Amino acid sequence: MTAQLWCFGESGNAYKAALTMELAGHHWAPVYVDFFNGEARSPAFRALNPMGEVPVFREDGLTLTQSAVIQLHVAERTGRFMGSDRNETLRWLMFDNHRLSGQAGPARFLLNFLPAGKRPAGAAEYLQGRLKAAYKVLDDHLSTRDWIADSAPTIADFACCGYLFYPEPFGFDRKDWPHIDRWLDAISALPGWKHPYDLMPGNPSDRAPKEDA
Amino acid sequence: MTAQLWCFGESGNAYKAALTMELAGHHWAPVYVDFFNGEARSPAFRALNPMGEVPVFREDGLTLTQSAVIQLHVAERTGRFMGSDRNETLRWLMFDNHRLSGQAGPARFLLNFLPAGKRPAGAAEYLQGRLKAAYKVLDDHLSTRDWIADSAPTIADFACCGYLFYPEPFGFDRKDWPHIDRWLDAISALPGWKHPYDLMPGNPSDRAPKEDA
Repeated sequence: MTAQLWCFGESGNAYKAALTMELAGHHWAPVYVDFFNGEARSPAFRALNPMGEVPVFREDGLTLTQSAVIQLHVAERTGRFMGSDRNETLRWLMFDNHRLSGQAGPARFLLNFLPAGKRPAGAAEYLQGRLKAAYKVLDDHLSTRDWIADSAPTIADFACCGYLFYPEPFGFDRKDWPHIDRWLDAISALPGWKHPYDLMPGNPSDRAPKEDA
Repeated sequence: MTAQLWCFGESGNAYKAALTMELAGHHWAPVYVDFFNGEARSPAFRALNPMGEVPVFREDGLTLTQSAVIQLHVAERTGRFMGSDRNETLRWLMFDNHRLSGQAGPARFLLNFLPAGKRPAGAAEYLQGRLKAAYKVLDDHLSTRDWIADSAPTIADFACCGYLFYPEPFGFDRKDWPHIDRWLDAISALPGWKHPYDLMPGNPSDRAPKEDA
């Protein structure tokens, strides 16, 4: 059976799950969530995921939420991209969640998808300061190795890159981080790789920003 | 052998790992990290954990970082607190990391451990707004159940409570969230439970704030 993934193009968190399935050869189909018109906060979506977030994965009666949980499930089911040390892979998933994507997603949202007048003062600058420390950890880590958690790509790579291919500016410039830059090139050279806007439905050209989220 | 945990009392992230070991009966001893004098950013500590964060766990030659990774390891080793559905437990660990503790830790730090003049404008207010949404998800979830991920306590409970027992004000008031309040009471009634300042060395009375972090 084909897995379903509730997602939308702008979501780096959904991208992590979609990219993992795509590269692992796990058959899946997207279910578009109209986030920018509030669908993720609707009662129907909250019934699917009370956390009010994409991605949501469903297959054969199993429903999973949180990108890392979906990534781990797909890696275990397909036998691909777990890496040789699950703890090492897992710790970078956690790092990504609270220090990298957990700040990059909100920073990008504030700076690109909210009208300037609705941006909470100082928030994006604060997030960018924290992000700089996270980029430095990752860039230093990649200065001596090709991939984050093993000698080959793992779901940790597909997590940490979640927001780093998007074109909207949020303070991340590949030129500032040469090892991250090289590693992103290596990810996008993997067979089957797709940019988030090519992998999932919906992108900024579809609409104007309408709602805080 | 006794596990070592690099930690300090103010760290809710370290508390999650310490509380899990304490309640699971996993023998451990704390190694104090002088965070407020910059030890977590020192070369010696970075050699232990390049991410520059507590907690760090070490036992029998195995080094683990990231609280959730340590919690999962201890749950697997002791056979306690994993819950009957690992995916469900794991998704609440992820929720905690990016929406709850991942915001509560910085908010509490900004409002209590930085001199007012050094606080980035607007940051704490922004984090508090995001936290309110996370408290609501958790409070609603606990309105129909005693524990987060199973019918008994799991490491998901010991993660989500990480910052919620501390006395320093950061905008979380138990009175506002009755189901969270009842659940925190149930956690603190578990045999062997200890408050973070009783479980780990170091607390605000030891020192005055000296350094941004």
